[in-house]
This record gives sequence, structure tokens and C-alpha cells, in this order.
Amino acid sequence: MTKKPVPYKIYLSEEEIPKQWYNLNAAMKVKHAPFLNPATLQPCSAAELSQVFCAECVEQELNDKDLYIDIPEDIRAFYKMYRPSPLVRAYVLEKALDTPAEIYYKFEGNNTSGSHKLNSAVAQAYYAKKQGLKSVTTETGAGQWGTALSMACAFYGLDLRVYMVKVSSEQKPYRKEVMRTYGATVIPSPSDSTEAGRKILKEFPGTGGSLGCAISEAVECAVSSPSCRYVLGSVLDHVVLHQSVIGLESKVAMEKYGVQPDIVIGCVGGGSNFGGLIAPFMGEKIQGKNNIEFIGVEPASCPSLTRGKYVYDFCDSAKITPLAKMYTLGCGFMPSASHAGGLRYHGMSPIVSALYHEGLMRAVAVEQTKVFEAAEFFARTEGILPAPESSHAIRAAIDEALKCKETGEKKTILFGLTGTGYFDMAAYKQYNDGTMTDTVPTDEELAKGFASIPAIPQNN
Amino acid sequence: MTKKPVPYKIYLSEEEIPKQWYNLNAAMKVKHAPFLNPATLQPCSAAELSQVFCAECVEQELNDKDLYIDIPEDIRAFYKMYRPSPLVRAYVLEKALDTPAEIYYKFEGNNTSGSHKLNSAVAQAYYAKKQGLKSVTTETGAGQWGTALSMACAFYGLDLRVYMVKVSSEQKPYRKEVMRTYGATVIPSPSDSTEAGRKILKEFPGTGGSLGCAISEAVECAVSSPSCRYVLGSVLDHVVLHQSVIGLESKVAMEKYGVQPDIVIGCVGGGSNFGGLIAPFMGEKIQGKNNIEFIGVEPASCPSLTRGKYVYDFCDSAKITPLAKMYTLGCGFMPSASHAGGLRYHGMSPIVSALYHEGLMRAVAVEQTKVFEAAEFFARTEGILPAPESSHAIRAAIDEALKCKETGEKKTILFGLTGTGYFDMAAYKQYNDGTMTDTVPTDEELAKGFASIPAIPQNN
Repeated sequence: MTKKPVPYKIYLSEEEIPKQWYNLNAAMKVKHAPFLNPATLQPCSAAELSQVFCAECVEQELNDKDLYIDIPEDIRAFYKMYRPSPLVRAYVLEKALDTPAEIYYKFEGNNTSGSHKLNSAVAQAYYAKKQGLKSVTTETGAGQWGTALSMACAFYGLDLRVYMVKVSSEQKPYRKEVMRTYGATVIPSPSDSTEAGRKILKEFPGTGGSLGCAISEAVECAVSSPSCRYVLGSVLDHVVLHQSVIGLESKVAMEKYGVQPDIVIGCVGGGSNFGGLIAPFMGEKIQGKNNIEFIGVEPASCPSLTRGKYVYDFCDSAKITPLAKMYTLGCGFMPSASHAGGLRYHGMSPIVSALYHEGLMRAVAVEQTKVFEAAEFFARTEGILPAPESSHAIRAAIDEALKCKETGEKKTILFGLTGTGYFDMAAYKQYNDGTMTDTVPTDEELAKGFASIPAIPQNN
Repeated sequence: MTKKPVPYKIYLSEEEIPKQWYNLNAAMKVKHAPFLNPATLQPCSAAELSQVFCAECVEQELNDKDLYIDIPEDIRAFYKMYRPSPLVRAYVLEKALDTPAEIYYKFEGNNTSGSHKLNSAVAQAYYAKKQGLKSVTTETGAGQWGTALSMACAFYGLDLRVYMVKVSSEQKPYRKEVMRTYGATVIPSPSDSTEAGRKILKEFPGTGGSLGCAISEAVECAVSSPSCRYVLGSVLDHVVLHQSVIGLESKVAMEKYGVQPDIVIGCVGGGSNFGGLIAPFMGEKIQGKNNIEFIGVEPASCPSLTRGKYVYDFCDSAKITPLAKMYTLGCGFMPSASHAGGLRYHGMSPIVSALYHEGLMRAVAVEQTKVFEAAEFFARTEGILPAPESSHAIRAAIDEALKCKETGEKKTILFGLTGTGYFDMAAYKQYNDGTMTDTVPTDEELAKGFASIPAIPQNN
């Protein structure tokens, strides 16, 4: 293919928004192990999962056969309000780094939720409405998922209750107001509104909470009403599926310009943005059609891939969810108050975990101050003020580009810029003031987390 | 022209970014009166203005001959990082209002400054750098102009000192951190760092400040150093000129789809976004080529067009700037702490003032709670969380669309959505909590403001 001159930003037309999601689960030769019912240790049935999740999401969750799954026209109509997202050539960053590498980023922050989260929020709210539900619950860390779901629920006329990780709700008071403006009810977690919350508060008085703990509360609240379901913003296969629009659009846009990535980089918390970004590229790698290097970037303060165990564990702190086979620090692991709230999760998407276990991708852990250094450099060159979560990917992309500078290699790097940092200014203030510190869990702290992994036969 | 189906968002290509700005000043048959030196009451010379502003901006300011002025390639390269901005068809809003009207909006908020302000910030920083200056000063109200200029100065390597209206700096603490992240120094105004600030603090102890007062401080600071100049984010002709990219892109995009606006609406504070949005459309109206209705929307709390006087007045509170012929509430008018900080200015762009005086446009004043009602409705339908300033235009656009619903007219409405409200959540919180109030100046308060207008012959 002849290479056309690449503009700063490549926008596809609205008609080029994918008509089908890409099901990475179907592309994988080695499937990840099934969810288990913790009471029976047997694989969860669709009926069991449907007590917690919307029926159509459960169907997608369990589908490891169909490589492509249709996107309903109603969802595509919503996507057209903010998609396709731009694929940006980072000309200014490249020049500032003086690197021979070409750097591209897929920017998902140009919508009010400020991130890629809206891609799955819209889909899940649509399916909930279609099923005749009245309300949904969820948890949120950084607040971007909660905002995205608030927007989707306002659009489809669903009631929404958001359990927001307490430390995030304190660091980002205005996130709460955005969700309220869209009509959602926001509750800092752990709260005394659920059994799970009360138990955690008793065990860890004064805790800032975690995603795992907020999940427990949201699930408990959802299953207590027949017209309510729980909606999750990451980790699960159907969320990775919805996020595949990121990768599909990126692939089409790059092909239009005759560009093929050598390296694809994304931050990993629950793993859905990364799974979605890499999906179609990874599918081809599994088929032997490319040799792309995939890099998941996690915070050193919550290093589930680089320092976790690949075992069955609960998805939440209160041990009420099904068991998932994944890289985990233990469902009882309490990450320190890193500012990348969206990455403070003890586990990892089973899909991403399986890819990592099979050696199809690698992972790096980076420290907070190095992440903000990259964030500031990126803001001053490329203009966009990135979210702390997204900045993990920026850090790794810059590091790879600097390696190219040393070796003289002209690699093509694609990274996912998942969102903007407009609600993270308290963290930027710490960095600006020079008071930000790095926290890395000690071996003792890790051991304590691992001790919370359920003692079941781990022979899968 | 045959009408093509209109997508949700119309993006022009980067090559379609205008190569020339549209000089509305040259299009006007009746030119606005010149700036006067307050000491001599004679028109300001280029040399006088150049002590305060960059030379090339002064040249543009005084140019009322050339209808088109070239945009330097370096500025266009920066524009490509975030432009063209989308022209959006408000399908969901139309449906929610059940109106026969077609509503379009030009969305300028998809950049880190969160508004259209970057269009002029880039140009002015570029000219300052080209002139060999080391630093610039400015004022900011809502903070969007200060953020925009911080981004531009980081890019061109200029030092920047921002005087931020005190009440805004308190309402929006995180705005300050964004500017700091881009390397700017931010000072709440009035401050004791200038003569002007100290004088205002003495006269109005405890005041929340105003744009006029922050301007005084920034100008005083700039003229005290030969390698520094003052940079203004609105009001002046060259700022309106730079903002004409908004109108030019809008016009091309609408023509592509065979659409012609019947009504064009924008919020007015200093008047630059409105002047830029209407520029090419108004130029054609002056030539008798269209009969578009232009509506400027201002806050009822600071109603310079609808309740002000068309006279010569100072542009700042401390009476150190040249005199401008404009609609004004008096340079001593202290607006109440409305949340639309960007609209708290006592005067109005001389170009917009002259158009209004000639009857080429009309103006409406709207109250704050009605503005936030429109903002929330817009957020829940169109997804985007708008800035309070921009929401003044939304309010008027909704009102016009509802009139169409009554009359059955299928008018085409275009409005400028100048920016996002992510840093305005304290105001949204007041609205969400039901504690927001409306303040409209009494006749007595207006009379007090008018008394500050300089007593000079007002015979132009």
C-alpha cells in the first residue's frame, strides 16, 4: 500500500464506525477458564450470571465462538454523537523527543465522560432498557466510568446508583456533580448502605476504599431488586468486546495511511481499554499475520500482572462475586491511594490475563512521579492534558520512542490515550508542588493480599 | 444546491482549515470609532498601541481595508492539532424539544483550554515570539483564556503571568493548576502586585474583582518591561479577526450540506466569539446577500448591550487603557458574582457594538437559573456538558426553537457552543442543590456604573 501523507488527526466518517464488535475471546486459541460459582466451584451458568447482569451482556460474555457480533443500530446512533474518535499523529511529541519512531495515539477523551468508558456504558444501558429494567447500579474509581454510565442512563431514562471509591470521591469532588447533573445518585464507598460496606468499614476503619469493595456494594444493591441489574465498566469479556471499537477504528485509520504498528501500548487496570485497543491486531497475531509487540502498563502501586498470581479469585473484596481465573494481588489487597483511581484494581481481565500467560503480550509497571512527568511533557507538546491512567501508556510510549532514539530504529508506536485529566487537578497540584510520592507494595503487603485468595483447588 | 443527508458531526479536513482570516472590520460600511488616547482625546497611533500590544496585532487592529488576512503557516500547523472543530447537528435536542427547527452548533470545546479562546491565543503568542519578546501578561475570568494562552506560551517558549479574576480563581481552583501545569504564573486579581490592584483593593475592600480590574493589572505589569507585552482574549478587533476561523469553518461545513442558517446565535461577554462566529455571514448580510437574524446573548447580571450606553469609555477599571467607543455599563461597574465569569465585562467589542447600533443584530439578556436549566437539558440530550457562558447561547437557541414549535416554522438555527463546563462544577452544584439565585442590577447600580464613564465630549 502506498503511504499517503499523514494529517495530524485522522477522523473516519460516521459511516465508518464499525457495524460489528470484534470478539477477542473467539479469536483466542487458548480460551480463558470459565467463571466459577464459589459455592459449587462449577462453571457459572447463564441463568446464574443473569441474576446480576443484563441477559444480553451475559450472552456476549459467554460467547467464545462468534468473531464478530453486530452492534445494534440504536447503539451506533449514540456512537455517532461522539465517535469516531481521532487517531492522532504525535508530530510535536516526536520532534520534542528527537526520535526516529513514529508515534500515533487513539484519543478517546473527546466526550463529556472524558474517556473510552462511554463505549461500553451506552451498550450496557441500551441492553438494560431493552430488557425492561428500571435501574442499574455500578461502582466507579476515577469517576470516568460513573460519568459515562450517568450519561447513558440519562439518555435511555434509567435510574442509576453509583458507588464511588471513597478516596476518589474526596480527590475529585466535582466528578460527583457531573454525575448528579446527569441525574445519578452517587454514594462514597465503603458506605453503611450495604452489608458488604458495613463489613469492610468494620474491618478497615478509615479506609479509602477500592474498586473491589465498591463492586461488592453495587452488586449487593442490584441483586436486591428484580428490576435492577449491576453494570461493570471493565474486566469482563463483554466490556472488552464493546471496547473493540477502539481497536477496529484504529486499524482502519492506520490502514488508510499505509501504516502498521510495530508496538501497541495501553494502560491496564481492569484491562478493558487495553483489550479493546489490541483486539483486532491481536486476533491477527494469533493467526500468525503480524508480529506486533503488545505492552500493558500498570501502576507500580497495584502491579497485578507483573507481581500478581494467575489463579482463581473473587472479583470483589467482600467475596460475593463469581470466581475468575486471572492475574490478581488477592481480593483483599488494598492498594495505596495512587491518583490513577481507574487502575486501583486487585485483578485483571481474564482475557488479558490469558494473553499475558500465553506470552502474547508483555507488561511493565511504572511509578507515579514518572507517569506525571510524562503527562506534563505530553500536555506541553501535544496540547492535551491526559488522565493519570492514560499517562501510564504515555510513559511507556515515550520510553519506547527513546529506545528507538538510541538504536536508530524507526518503529511505529500506537498507544491508547484513554482520557483527559480535567478532574485530576488535585493530583497535578501535588506534582506541580513537588509533594507527590511513589508507593510500591512491600513483599509483606503482597503476601497479605495473596492470603486473601480463596483456598480452592487451583488446577485449571 | 442539493441537500445531502447531514451526519451528526461535520468535520472538515485539516486542509480545509481557512488559509485567511475574515476581517469583519473591513466588511463594515460604517466603521466603528477609533480608540482615543485619554490624555489627548486624539485617535491612538500604532506607535502608542505598540507599547502595550505586539506590533503585528496592532497592525491587524487598525486594518479596516483588507477583507482577508493571511494566517501564517506556523499558526495553521498549531490549528491542525485541534481544528477543524466539529459542526454538530443537534438531532437529539431537536427531538427532545419536538421542534420543526433544525439546530446546528459549532463546538469549540474539544481542546484542553476547553474553548474557542485557543484560536486567538495561538496567534498572539506566535506574533509575540516572532517579535522577539520574552514574556506576555494577560487577565482571565472564567479561566479559559488563561488556559489557552498557557498552552500557546508553553508551545512557543514564552513566560506568562496571568491575572485571574479573584472570584473565578476561588470558584475554580483547579483551573489554576491547569495553567501551572503548562508553566504559567497565576495571580488572583485584584492583587497588591500592581498600583492598579492596590488602588481597587483600597476602594472596594473584599471585592471579587472583575475582568476590567484584572486587565488594569496585566497592562500595568506588561508596560513595565520592554521585552513584555499585554495580550487580550476578547473585545479587540484583532481578536475578533482570529476568531473568524469559527465562522469560516461553519459556513463551509453548512454549504457542504446545502444548509443556510436563518438565525445565528452566540453568547457575548467581550464579544470575540460572537464576532468571529458571525463574521463571514454578517459580511454577506452587509452586502445584501442574506437576511440572517443575528442574536447576541448576555447575562442579565451584566447587560452591556441591552441596558448599557453607546459611548467612549475605558476598557479597564483603573482607567489606564485607551478609550473605546462601545456599549458599556461604565468602567466602574462591578458585576455580581455570576458564574459565567467569562461574561462579567462592563463593555463590549467595538465591532459588535457598532453592528448592534446599526441594527444589524439584536441582543437578549437571560437570567442565570434559566441558563443552567438549558445547560442541564442540553447535557442530558446532546451529551456535552456546556460552559455557563456557552449555555447563554443554548438558552436562546432553545427559546428560538420553541418559538418555531409554536409557529410551525422550520427555521435553521446555528449557535456557537464555545466551550465545556468541566471546571464550572461549583456552579452546577449550586444549580443541582437548588441554591442558585438570579441577580439583576438595579437602576441605581447601573446609574453608579454610568457615573464612572469619563466626562468627555461624546459626539462621535
